[in-house]
Amino acid sequence: MKIEQLRYVIIAPEAEVVKWQAAFAKIAPTLTLEVGPLVEAPETVSILLLWNHPAGCLKAFTNAQLIYSLGAGVDHLMRDPELPKHIPICRIVDPLLSFSMSNYIIFALLYYHRKWDKYVADQKAQIWDHDAPPEIPIKVGILGLGTLGQDAAIKIKHLGFDVVGYSPSPKPLTGIQTFHEGQIDAFLASCNVLVCTVPYTSATHGLLSMTLFKKLKKPTFLINASRGKVQKSQDILQALEMGILTGAFLDVFEQEPLPKESPMWQHPKIYITPHVASITNPQAGAKQMLKNVQALLDHKPLEHQVNPSKGY
Amino acid sequence: MKIEQLRYVIIAPEAEVVKWQAAFAKIAPTLTLEVGPLVEAPETVSILLLWNHPAGCLKAFTNAQLIYSLGAGVDHLMRDPELPKHIPICRIVDPLLSFSMSNYIIFALLYYHRKWDKYVADQKAQIWDHDAPPEIPIKVGILGLGTLGQDAAIKIKHLGFDVVGYSPSPKPLTGIQTFHEGQIDAFLASCNVLVCTVPYTSATHGLLSMTLFKKLKKPTFLINASRGKVQKSQDILQALEMGILTGAFLDVFEQEPLPKESPMWQHPKIYITPHVASITNPQAGAKQMLKNVQALLDHKPLEHQVNPSKGY
Repeated sequence: MKIEQLRYVIIAPEAEVVKWQAAFAKIAPTLTLEVGPLVEAPETVSILLLWNHPAGCLKAFTNAQLIYSLGAGVDHLMRDPELPKHIPICRIVDPLLSFSMSNYIIFALLYYHRKWDKYVADQKAQIWDHDAPPEIPIKVGILGLGTLGQDAAIKIKHLGFDVVGYSPSPKPLTGIQTFHEGQIDAFLASCNVLVCTVPYTSATHGLLSMTLFKKLKKPTFLINASRGKVQKSQDILQALEMGILTGAFLDVFEQEPLPKESPMWQHPKIYITPHVASITNPQAGAKQMLKNVQALLDHKPLEHQVNPSKGY
Repeated sequence: MKIEQLRYVIIAPEAEVVKWQAAFAKIAPTLTLEVGPLVEAPETVSILLLWNHPAGCLKAFTNAQLIYSLGAGVDHLMRDPELPKHIPICRIVDPLLSFSMSNYIIFALLYYHRKWDKYVADQKAQIWDHDAPPEIPIKVGILGLGTLGQDAAIKIKHLGFDVVGYSPSPKPLTGIQTFHEGQIDAFLASCNVLVCTVPYTSATHGLLSMTLFKKLKKPTFLINASRGKVQKSQDILQALEMGILTGAFLDVFEQEPLPKESPMWQHPKIYITPHVASITNPQAGAKQMLKNVQALLDHKPLEHQVNPSKGY
């Protein structure tokens, strides 16, 4: 059996479908990417490519062999109670994804470290202040040491910053102190820039809350480039108000797009981007996916397989 | 002879003197840092610490054994025709200097790469634009591969960017294509973000000019964190006007402080900082200096010695 002989169905918003079809046309022109959820003979479909699929639509694909999330996050899959758990589920972890994510995080932390707000205001007012210290001393905490969190931790360390990391299971990283289960308070007490790179699961729902903010070293700058439901917007606003947080650089929000009436838009200490920290590159993703389909046919181990019991 | 038995004289602006005296008090409390240029028995002074000394004041120090620049740049020394050239001249190259310089440069290039102007404007207008590509593809050229330029090149490469470098003499760097004497046009034609980290010498005076800008890949973003006299402000303004440059992130200016009447202040495509990319940390610098004084007494090779014939 060859990878071209399998049937592939994509179930995703229109814009995503167009991007992935174009990518497959380039990478594997002999392969057809059918658009679901309504296709003929769904029982002969092998590979499902999913992004925000409608609940209930997976039932028909009774002989699917592999499910692929079209991004790094899999929360959109996990919330479907009918998601088949007996077949492998994989996610895209392309190198460009960590390139973009880490550079987004580094931009956000240098924005704070290098006092960019001050220099923007000074330029506007034509003030030449050579004598003020141009940097804020920071110790960076990476909350979540998955593929993306580790990449960010290593790169930030390489730039010369003190870095600590937290992840439920021990993840040793050269030159970086890491904390695990039971040590989260010690982790939080040790850093004053908190970078959130956790997956969204029932365990991380609402994790970025006042309770957590109070445990960090002051003043604390928050960067969230993971998932919006990991944070409590009201708590971020309140923590800024109380001076517990000194700023928040946010790519994700509890509700996306961020509603027009949100007070976050015009908050002088909140920096907003529209969930663009890391956009999956479909061509790199398609290559990775087909390599995994080949591994499946060869009965070899798959890369970037999701553990459904953990939820990521 | 011990390092404490030598006489040290600092000749620098008041603010610098205060900082270095504090640093020496911490690092070497038994050592006296006398403030010049007017001191008793200048002929018994061994070590001169200089930053923007008044011309002509060095004559009296007839038995100086070592001259130290209190920063990475030595142009302030070289412009004094009476600078003694028969004794070693060293400059501070502390690790924090490259920490700060590289992070400044990386902030500036991510500012452009991650389209920060767009996202600031979008936030202000409450626009959630998830679909626009969030990054500008860039290839980074480092003009000047001294200690600071090399550090920046290596770190930017480590972040996943394509990096090329230029330096008059060949400087091989792993994974980075480098150009040298005679290849500057090929270097310029290969990159669309130009980072200037050259020393200021007669050869680099006015180097960043229209002639040079025209040779770069379009659209070009300029970052100058070296010395102001390396650039021609009028040419930068004109190149922006003509669309040859798409933006300029400048830490240095031909005249500093930047004059109030300069059109650069309010230019929407010029990002100004007041010569703060890299500030020498006096304690780290003092340690490095005393290590070199010890080497001098031991007749061992000195670190970071300047070549006066090259001017850096």
